[in-house]
Amino acid sequence: MPDRGFASDNAATVHPDVLAALARENDGHAISYGHDPLTQRVHATLEREFGPGATAVLVFNGSAANVLSLRAACRPWEAAICAAAAHINVDEGGAPESIAGVKLLAVDTADGKLTPELVAPRIERIGDEHAVQPRLLSITQSSEVGTLYTLDELRALSEFAHGHDLLVHIDGARLANAAAALDCALGEAATGADLLSLGGTKNGLMLGEAVIVRAGASEAGGTLAFLRKQTLQLASKMRYVSAQFDAYFHDELWRRTARHANAMASRLEAAVASIHGVEVTQAVQTNAVFARIPAAAIAPLQERFAFHVWDETQSIVRWMCSWDTTEGDVDAFAAAIAEVLADGDQ
Amino acid sequence: MPDRGFASDNAATVHPDVLAALARENDGHAISYGHDPLTQRVHATLEREFGPGATAVLVFNGSAANVLSLRAACRPWEAAICAAAAHINVDEGGAPESIAGVKLLAVDTADGKLTPELVAPRIERIGDEHAVQPRLLSITQSSEVGTLYTLDELRALSEFAHGHDLLVHIDGARLANAAAALDCALGEAATGADLLSLGGTKNGLMLGEAVIVRAGASEAGGTLAFLRKQTLQLASKMRYVSAQFDAYFHDELWRRTARHANAMASRLEAAVASIHGVEVTQAVQTNAVFARIPAAAIAPLQERFAFHVWDETQSIVRWMCSWDTTEGDVDAFAAAIAEVLADGDQ
Amino acid sequence: MPDRGFASDNAATVHPDVLAALARENDGHAISYGHDPLTQRVHATLEREFGPGATAVLVFNGSAANVLSLRAACRPWEAAICAAAAHINVDEGGAPESIAGVKLLAVDTADGKLTPELVAPRIERIGDEHAVQPRLLSITQSSEVGTLYTLDELRALSEFAHGHDLLVHIDGARLANAAAALDCALGEAATGADLLSLGGTKNGLMLGEAVIVRAGASEAGGTLAFLRKQTLQLASKMRYVSAQFDAYFHDELWRRTARHANAMASRLEAAVASIHGVEVTQAVQTNAVFARIPAAAIAPLQERFAFHVWDETQSIVRWMCSWDTTEGDVDAFAAAIAEVLADGDQ
Amino acid sequence: MPDRGFASDNAATVHPDVLAALARENDGHAISYGHDPLTQRVHATLEREFGPGATAVLVFNGSAANVLSLRAACRPWEAAICAAAAHINVDEGGAPESIAGVKLLAVDTADGKLTPELVAPRIERIGDEHAVQPRLLSITQSSEVGTLYTLDELRALSEFAHGHDLLVHIDGARLANAAAALDCALGEAATGADLLSLGGTKNGLMLGEAVIVRAGASEAGGTLAFLRKQTLQLASKMRYVSAQFDAYFHDELWRRTARHANAMASRLEAAVASIHGVEVTQAVQTNAVFARIPAAAIAPLQERFAFHVWDETQSIVRWMCSWDTTEGDVDAFAAAIAEVLADGDQ
Repeated sequence: MPDRGFASDNAATVHPDVLAALARENDGHAISYGHDPLTQRVHATLEREFGPGATAVLVFNGSAANVLSLRAACRPWEAAICAAAAHINVDEGGAPESIAGVKLLAVDTADGKLTPELVAPRIERIGDEHAVQPRLLSITQSSEVGTLYTLDELRALSEFAHGHDLLVHIDGARLANAAAALDCALGEAATGADLLSLGGTKNGLMLGEAVIVRAGASEAGGTLAFLRKQTLQLASKMRYVSAQFDAYFHDELWRRTARHANAMASRLEAAVASIHGVEVTQAVQTNAVFARIPAAAIAPLQERFAFHVWDETQSIVRWMCSWDTTEGDVDAFAAAIAEVLADGDQ
Repeated sequence: MPDRGFASDNAATVHPDVLAALARENDGHAISYGHDPLTQRVHATLEREFGPGATAVLVFNGSAANVLSLRAACRPWEAAICAAAAHINVDEGGAPESIAGVKLLAVDTADGKLTPELVAPRIERIGDEHAVQPRLLSITQSSEVGTLYTLDELRALSEFAHGHDLLVHIDGARLANAAAALDCALGEAATGADLLSLGGTKNGLMLGEAVIVRAGASEAGGTLAFLRKQTLQLASKMRYVSAQFDAYFHDELWRRTARHANAMASRLEAAVASIHGVEVTQAVQTNAVFARIPAAAIAPLQERFAFHVWDETQSIVRWMCSWDTTEGDVDAFAAAIAEVLADGDQ
Repeated sequence: MPDRGFASDNAATVHPDVLAALARENDGHAISYGHDPLTQRVHATLEREFGPGATAVLVFNGSAANVLSLRAACRPWEAAICAAAAHINVDEGGAPESIAGVKLLAVDTADGKLTPELVAPRIERIGDEHAVQPRLLSITQSSEVGTLYTLDELRALSEFAHGHDLLVHIDGARLANAAAALDCALGEAATGADLLSLGGTKNGLMLGEAVIVRAGASEAGGTLAFLRKQTLQLASKMRYVSAQFDAYFHDELWRRTARHANAMASRLEAAVASIHGVEVTQAVQTNAVFARIPAAAIAPLQERFAFHVWDETQSIVRWMCSWDTTEGDVDAFAAAIAEVLADGDQ
Repeated sequence: MPDRGFASDNAATVHPDVLAALARENDGHAISYGHDPLTQRVHATLEREFGPGATAVLVFNGSAANVLSLRAACRPWEAAICAAAAHINVDEGGAPESIAGVKLLAVDTADGKLTPELVAPRIERIGDEHAVQPRLLSITQSSEVGTLYTLDELRALSEFAHGHDLLVHIDGARLANAAAALDCALGEAATGADLLSLGGTKNGLMLGEAVIVRAGASEAGGTLAFLRKQTLQLASKMRYVSAQFDAYFHDELWRRTARHANAMASRLEAAVASIHGVEVTQAVQTNAVFARIPAAAIAPLQERFAFHVWDETQSIVRWMCSWDTTEGDVDAFAAAIAEVLADGDQ
């Protein structure tokens, strides 16, 4: 096996700038639980990125950021509308329901993206106590299948949501990849979001995510500190989470790492375009390539490079690029794909 | 303010061996969510420390380790008996009740320690569906006020608990300090525990705790992986948590750091013994000194060194030593105490 | 408006035998919370109906019976597979998620009925801690759209479920209607069920449902008493709930009332068969008639008889017959339908 | 055993006026889930009793009324202060914690009653995210040991609570007994309460309680309908619960039944005053007599009359009078007490 595969962006290493920041911070005592000056600086940075009046808290992981957002937005009888493929719906071990107590109203999508037309039928039975009341629209930017919402799409979706008294949450585990692809600010890539989960771990941090509540959804913002503690996400030695984010925002490290990962996915897409038997099934807009390959090729290829099968019944695989994927990694992988598929053809 | 105060052992730095381990691990991709070889090695180490058949999972922080233990041990109508001063009862933001759904039956103590005599009255109404059913005895080793259970005390308490069909949980956020003080193995310092939260963060790690379920409480052990994920405690880049624990167990780093912190508390106790106006209120057995000082002295002293007021009405303060507290820190602090109290006397 | 409409079987009155039983029971004190002899007798009856080793508890309403079943069957990370149209999925105000903490995996159906083929794709990712683990298959007999599972279908479905380590739950809010239609015992109509919610309220009781856990799912059975109390379903003056069930089982009152309600639905179906503009959309197998009628006819008809619109976009209405619906009621309603639709034709 | 004992007021029968109301209501269909005119009338009555702007919903039992109040008042990190002897703390099977997710801060009392002095120490750590935040003061009127808050005491306690930003909840399972004893209106007996659980079952109803949220705590009021449904307390055939309350308020039936039960307790108190070996341990202010009797006398006396042991270690028993307790019952019971204790003396 080579040093780096295409299994996930969370299989990647920590960016050296982040490691360096941890070492630099490791000097003398600091008040715990986020009252230290570095954390305050990071909060200020986050609030600047996401607009005046935004409130931010740092948490440990992405599932937690999402569940905290659900808890901040929804009262017990309120529900969240999301794509069926959304991470909150299929990859959080039932935490949205068991920990946040929130019912998810899942909508099938072709490309992981919701539209007003798809969402509309789930906004029903308003005021009927027998039915959960939709309160939140949760979308993922960039999506679980690597696709992007344009700023226009975000505007349309959030206007629609707000017009129906829904808050908008963005699961931004890969918001940096979206902002890099859209060539816009982080805050713009989250246009229309009232709450968001901002990822770091998949883009070069060791561990750390943020929950941001924008002004105007301020009641939820005022409760974040209590909810974070109760949801078991308050780091005692917070400065070591904050130091990572501080490095992340320094000279837009996040954009550099995300842009590189996106570029590697484009390179991979180009490299496999001419390989007979590979059908790219989703638009490659960020750092993932989804492709259908012959079922018989999957296992032999996995012996050479790590990657995940996304949909076994349809023989669709996911190839994920990271901040530390090299051009050489991509080229070697593409060559391996070509070889394995050629073997299969014979 | 000096570089280091006495506010908390979580205000301290990360041990350099731990930082070095993080840097060393930062090479090439690794499978995420704990399936990497380093994590497997740490699991094996933990299982060795706590006996054959023990199951271990790594989590982010101590509150989470405790709440995960409660979730693993108790069904919805089952309750945990604990000291009124226990961290789970007063410092976890209601997570035991709101996240685990477990009622705590709190018992007043003089020194943070439970005894069979104190626990017995809370084991009542067994089989009565109107009352929660005691299922877990949770104790803290070393306790929130720095006191220690001897191995004999642990044996007596756990025999008592098991005799009443209670599981025993140890909140071992500072188990290392206990084992160092008792000069025994970590596993021995947790004698009688069926489940335990093993701390690292307060003793030189950056962040990381473990939940261990011993054999014999094995049903709970089998559910840990699902509960950890759902309780939002599964790190994607797990190897960076595991690397810390790997360093922690290397040549018993944990014992060296804990022993040092304990020694610094003893030094502080000795240094203040002769200061008029300081009354040490709890036996100094690990890394904390609890003392009553004149109320008027608190603020002036806090201007010079960080520490917490434990009980304002009784004018009791907590002075916490860390792995990185130096003899010079202790001596300077003792001198400051003497000065401030002398000023107050005039 | 006439005395009786077709809105719901829970708009109906209480059967006189049930009222008489309440009056008869109202003599002298009785030990509370179900320790009275009448309740014990009802438990024995329920256990006889549902097989040796069955455990039964009485609760207040159907949502509670279902949520109690979910709590008894599922651990926090376990999920229930159900039809998208299931009462637990759309009509219980989010209680399955918020109170039981259980995620529902909803499956679209044409007729409210699940099959092994429909269920199979949801049994996936077994052992994967990131995903909820299917543990329960919940079906409704007779279904929310009035359709029936045959005993063969129940056998096939439960064998399939048990073969995949799923327990089977039947929401039997209208199990009596099913048993009457199938001309079998109540227990037979619940063939294959490990847990069931047995309705009474919709079939002539004032209020009262039962949860039954069959032998073999016995661990769940042992916890029912604690779960019922905690789920706020333990009546203090239980004998007045039990008296209703006692009357319900006397000479199979339940079968007589259910058979009558079913017969009224058949009569209504026959009566509307020849009305131009009425399309019956579900097989009329129990006490409901689902029909598509012209959208413009709905409001005028509702001015004359109460009934619910089931699906506004498809112009489908539900006409529900009750134990107290008379032949005259049906004939008058059918005549009104004919008149209103004839008016619309002109 | 005689027809009536002294075990509990929920061992008593249903008042004939209530049964008659059920029979009277049993005529023709009525819209379900509380949209019927009788339920609307009862809501109006309740709102009149508890002041303009009050919101009321009917539920099944007292535990549910209390848990619903907790859910309406507290956000996840907020806590309720109550007496250690409170029903919510010891007799609701952990539902406050497991279902409402609310931590209770229990305060020891001598007579079941809280005072500002007892409550004050629990209002601490405001704004500290590590600690639950007190939000509700819950008291029981009349208390679990039969004692009463005077209107002055209620005023003082609620002013204190409101001054500390706490809402006040009254568990009024026996509010009627309190109002009868205080010779005031029901609403007055709940002076200062923002939310209350109003009992009916212990005072002559078959089953039925109400939750009332007064104006000024209006946000909580607006959420009651959704919370009641989700907390599994929405009766489908609501009119049969409402009919009971309608009878309860007709010519103040509640006052007549409560006054009688209170009078029977006074009679019993007077009758045992001269019996050697009986020590009444709580002021007899409503319908309960708490007494210390020789331990050896308990079992023989229970063979003749039903009653509960309240505190086995202190040999304290509870004798509860009901709306249907007769003077003959009291006299016979007092005679039995005298006989059994005389036997013991020999």
